[in-house]
Amino acid sequence: MINVGIIGATGYSGTELTRLLYSHPDVNIDFLCSNSYVGEPFCDVYSGFKNFIDKKCINIHEAFERLNDIDVLFTALPSGKALEFGKKAMDIGVKLIDIGSDFRLKDKSLYKEWYKLEHTYPDLLSKAVYGLPEINKEEIKKANLVANPGCYPTASSLALIPLVKNHIIDTSSIIIDAKSGVSGAGRKAATGNLFVECNESIKAYGVTTHRHTPEIEQTLSTMAKEDIKLTFTPHLVPMNRGILAVCYATLNKKYKLEDLLNLYRDFYKDSCFVRVTEELPETRFVKDSNFCDISLRIDHRTNKVIVISAIDNLIKGAAGQAIQNMNLMFGIEETKALELIPIFA
Amino acid sequence: MINVGIIGATGYSGTELTRLLYSHPDVNIDFLCSNSYVGEPFCDVYSGFKNFIDKKCINIHEAFERLNDIDVLFTALPSGKALEFGKKAMDIGVKLIDIGSDFRLKDKSLYKEWYKLEHTYPDLLSKAVYGLPEINKEEIKKANLVANPGCYPTASSLALIPLVKNHIIDTSSIIIDAKSGVSGAGRKAATGNLFVECNESIKAYGVTTHRHTPEIEQTLSTMAKEDIKLTFTPHLVPMNRGILAVCYATLNKKYKLEDLLNLYRDFYKDSCFVRVTEELPETRFVKDSNFCDISLRIDHRTNKVIVISAIDNLIKGAAGQAIQNMNLMFGIEETKALELIPIFA
Amino acid sequence: MINVGIIGATGYSGTELTRLLYSHPDVNIDFLCSNSYVGEPFCDVYSGFKNFIDKKCINIHEAFERLNDIDVLFTALPSGKALEFGKKAMDIGVKLIDIGSDFRLKDKSLYKEWYKLEHTYPDLLSKAVYGLPEINKEEIKKANLVANPGCYPTASSLALIPLVKNHIIDTSSIIIDAKSGVSGAGRKAATGNLFVECNESIKAYGVTTHRHTPEIEQTLSTMAKEDIKLTFTPHLVPMNRGILAVCYATLNKKYKLEDLLNLYRDFYKDSCFVRVTEELPETRFVKDSNFCDISLRIDHRTNKVIVISAIDNLIKGAAGQAIQNMNLMFGIEETKALELIPIFA
Amino acid sequence: MINVGIIGATGYSGTELTRLLYSHPDVNIDFLCSNSYVGEPFCDVYSGFKNFIDKKCINIHEAFERLNDIDVLFTALPSGKALEFGKKAMDIGVKLIDIGSDFRLKDKSLYKEWYKLEHTYPDLLSKAVYGLPEINKEEIKKANLVANPGCYPTASSLALIPLVKNHIIDTSSIIIDAKSGVSGAGRKAATGNLFVECNESIKAYGVTTHRHTPEIEQTLSTMAKEDIKLTFTPHLVPMNRGILAVCYATLNKKYKLEDLLNLYRDFYKDSCFVRVTEELPETRFVKDSNFCDISLRIDHRTNKVIVISAIDNLIKGAAGQAIQNMNLMFGIEETKALELIPIFA
Repeated sequence: MINVGIIGATGYSGTELTRLLYSHPDVNIDFLCSNSYVGEPFCDVYSGFKNFIDKKCINIHEAFERLNDIDVLFTALPSGKALEFGKKAMDIGVKLIDIGSDFRLKDKSLYKEWYKLEHTYPDLLSKAVYGLPEINKEEIKKANLVANPGCYPTASSLALIPLVKNHIIDTSSIIIDAKSGVSGAGRKAATGNLFVECNESIKAYGVTTHRHTPEIEQTLSTMAKEDIKLTFTPHLVPMNRGILAVCYATLNKKYKLEDLLNLYRDFYKDSCFVRVTEELPETRFVKDSNFCDISLRIDHRTNKVIVISAIDNLIKGAAGQAIQNMNLMFGIEETKALELIPIFA
Repeated sequence: MINVGIIGATGYSGTELTRLLYSHPDVNIDFLCSNSYVGEPFCDVYSGFKNFIDKKCINIHEAFERLNDIDVLFTALPSGKALEFGKKAMDIGVKLIDIGSDFRLKDKSLYKEWYKLEHTYPDLLSKAVYGLPEINKEEIKKANLVANPGCYPTASSLALIPLVKNHIIDTSSIIIDAKSGVSGAGRKAATGNLFVECNESIKAYGVTTHRHTPEIEQTLSTMAKEDIKLTFTPHLVPMNRGILAVCYATLNKKYKLEDLLNLYRDFYKDSCFVRVTEELPETRFVKDSNFCDISLRIDHRTNKVIVISAIDNLIKGAAGQAIQNMNLMFGIEETKALELIPIFA
Repeated sequence: MINVGIIGATGYSGTELTRLLYSHPDVNIDFLCSNSYVGEPFCDVYSGFKNFIDKKCINIHEAFERLNDIDVLFTALPSGKALEFGKKAMDIGVKLIDIGSDFRLKDKSLYKEWYKLEHTYPDLLSKAVYGLPEINKEEIKKANLVANPGCYPTASSLALIPLVKNHIIDTSSIIIDAKSGVSGAGRKAATGNLFVECNESIKAYGVTTHRHTPEIEQTLSTMAKEDIKLTFTPHLVPMNRGILAVCYATLNKKYKLEDLLNLYRDFYKDSCFVRVTEELPETRFVKDSNFCDISLRIDHRTNKVIVISAIDNLIKGAAGQAIQNMNLMFGIEETKALELIPIFA
Repeated sequence: MINVGIIGATGYSGTELTRLLYSHPDVNIDFLCSNSYVGEPFCDVYSGFKNFIDKKCINIHEAFERLNDIDVLFTALPSGKALEFGKKAMDIGVKLIDIGSDFRLKDKSLYKEWYKLEHTYPDLLSKAVYGLPEINKEEIKKANLVANPGCYPTASSLALIPLVKNHIIDTSSIIIDAKSGVSGAGRKAATGNLFVECNESIKAYGVTTHRHTPEIEQTLSTMAKEDIKLTFTPHLVPMNRGILAVCYATLNKKYKLEDLLNLYRDFYKDSCFVRVTEELPETRFVKDSNFCDISLRIDHRTNKVIVISAIDNLIKGAAGQAIQNMNLMFGIEETKALELIPIFA
């Protein structure tokens, strides 16, 4: 059994992680940490967990002390808050999967630029493996520190990697127009996240400034072996879950749809959670699952390609991918506890 | 392995049944029948099933012929449409679980009155066991024909049975005000079910005339050993899933909340899918699970009790309960394939 | 021109009041007060008001000083916060319409019991007229202090008054099961009001303890000329606006539907904003209007009547009714600025 | 008084048109035509209209006969269905405003290519004025036949015209990623428009093939005086109303945000329904109004501009703009009956 600890367990990603890990046959949840609900049984915070988890939430200091008890720590925290956990975990030989953003960017100056924080353990950045199994599976298997990708970067990178790696598009033309359900905004009690403010409306936010931009660029640049800058626009959509990433780029030459689809099918033939489909993805077809559905169209009139991907932001975009990474790190079957058929409604 | 067939597989209940049965370790899905999508792979109708089920939907005549191949048939059909299947299944010794309404009412004249149909096999009505495991577990274990309860009756009956069985309320005072998500209306392409017509609105419907009324009365009358007539008002709520049943009745004498809660806890102590809670149920806390959450309050000022129950209408109200019944009928652990933690969002 | 001030202008009711008063041909908005947005132009708080209202929000102390400048003050504040405004307004001869709850209950001990506050100006309670024009029109015309009814009490009382006034029901049997959109919970940034927490779920809340209970009882008791206690259960529904009140009671004798409908039609024949309909009300048919739609059904099997009413909680349940009251108080046509066709979507 | 007839009155656009025209002080609604509800009072189809419009819907043949009675006809019909009305109206000197798509494209071969229909009266295409008042005000004033722009083209064109007219962007780089509420799909009872199918999901549709593409291109090409081809991707968002158009293009040189904002402010200084804002538009801030809100951002890293516009698809995207056109055609103040503050919830 793998003994796990979860920090930030009562946030939306943390809760989903707790739910999925609870059903993992090889996992024992050692502790759940939530500063907002210290001392409260987890099932009192989320009544759905009644009959399953009545373990009490511990505070962050206690969690820090209990790192020795576990095999792997999951951190689902705001930026900057996982740094000390990363340091200690590496020091004492506990594996860490950070669902937050503290170990994703390889370049500490980018971290400072986009997150407005000094990275206190930049040496850990080189140690950290970016946890996108579709491109880093072997490194993840050997990793002690995995930076779980952001939700938008997961959907966006998986949509674009086959194109940039194969030099099919003009990389200066990339535009990602992504749409997310409101759970992506987290569980913070802010006016802007209230039901009445979000319901029956759609908006773009963080236009040209969203922190997931350099993360996507880092992945695509690595795959393309060239420096890529792109335009990324996230949106808030009145639904609980789901990300739809619609990616635009100019094709370097004329292509047939079927050829590009086959390129994708081939690229992802060993990726158990990527489904390349003929029909355009819809978020409802991946809801409550770890899948990333991808399809594409060619606009022959303008010679642009439109690649569309859909994920469940809390699963493939956070908790599910973290478990996928854990499975790989511990030599377990990649799909364990993740063989989830999407729930259609 | 239990070989199963599903008729009405592409309706909302049928699809949910297909999803849950697919993950059942003791079940093999032999055929999926859907008149609307004959010849189409199931995963083309619901793209979420890609990588899981590409079996083609067969038509109802073919399904009828293939009854011999299976151990148990699930029918999820409009009223009147399961009668012939019930007849044949019983004749050839195949078990049948009807998620529809053809075998629920014991009295064929009630069937005619409420469903406006002549029951062609009234002898099957006495053979059929009403599939509410919380009260009929032993009979279900021995049954060949199980009438799976309606969604509203499941939530309503579980809320009220402890009270009527223990003669705690004035049975002439019972009022059930129930609220359902739109999936309860089925997948029929009717104007009234369009997104724009349902969204941002709530309405009562079928007031004093809903067909689930005699079904609830039958169950409660049996438990109370007296003839009960009650008032039942269903509502349509702008959400996909969930039923909240709010049940009112006048108490026969003064009671303390804790005493009534304990009575419920005791009554349901062997019911693995009923959770008696102190907090009031919300449908989100049972979503995507087979649970029925129940709590209650006493209005001491008016000496009325308010019992509130919540279920997922497609699971405990349909597909999940059907599997719970199948498990019992085949001597499998009651909770198999149903150990689902509710999904909080 | 009537010079008005609005306190609590950036809450949901206050904003709706501001919108409707802006279009009132006889009204000039003198000041908008909002402690949360002091100094900010109103159209920066709600961008929809751009091109209309760029007046800056003033604080509550400044508003207090400026009472002399206006003819009528609207207060949309939490309980207890309108008391001083009521006192000063009456002292200096400014009319006041309180959309909050400080002047609704005639009995100060009820105010203390349900609101947990000592009423500091109980003499104002006798001065205050309960602003339900359908029963108090003449008093409202002469009033200086109007207590605008709560949203649930408006829908519930209008549904039940004809029955209790005409002694048609057993008043000990009244049950009100009411459902509200989330704007009814106000604009407070609380976790429970977040999009993800409210969306795709329904719950009852405040069961047996909601503060609108004594307000409804006071109105019905007055109309019935007997002391009425009833059971009231509010619910939160995942939509922005709307209240559906479903009211149950036992009939004193047998009635025909048409006779009761005619009784309602007759009772409300001079009430311009009550529509007695044959079809059951739905909240979408009154959205963005000042109407209260009412219909009813008789459950002959149990001899109960079910009366259903629908309002827009922010209009007939708050801002619209306040303007209706203002029109009456100032001798203007009752429907002025309120001739709004419901917006169907 | 202007005597008007409405064909397609019970569709979503037609109903909104009926609601708004009813409140227009200079308009008399002569007839409402709806083939689906012939003979039914309009207020029985949409109960919200009770007390306002009990006129019965007439059929399309009767409407054809009654053209002589009216001053202006509004057609809100599927493509191809307004052609005969256009012919007759022009022949007898009745003005026509087509909310459908039969007179928008100047080139009949484009009509055939995108709508798969032969245009039977191509001569009317040159007569028809494209009803986007922000660029064609003077022509509209003199027009007898106005082609009311599509919803997406209204939002998209208003967002991009200042850029293309001023040669600020590389016109081969234009990408429009637009998102619409479900009312945009019309009131057809199709499975894909059911609540459960649309709710909690987002999808792109009609990618590279949507019929609004050539309409946007025609407008932008005219303004730019060059042939523009662009990529247009519409999406379905789980909300009733609203379009958010997010438009991307590469800037021809470096620009400052403030300079481009000022260019927009200047361009639209006489356009009463365009609001150029610093903050990014959200559909809730234009809901139930005739406004088009526009703002933009420059992505200096990639030298792209992102222009975002928001409209209410049923008002500025259909019925409201049609009335704006009518006002201009009849010499009435442009804003009459359209001075609507957006409803924030």
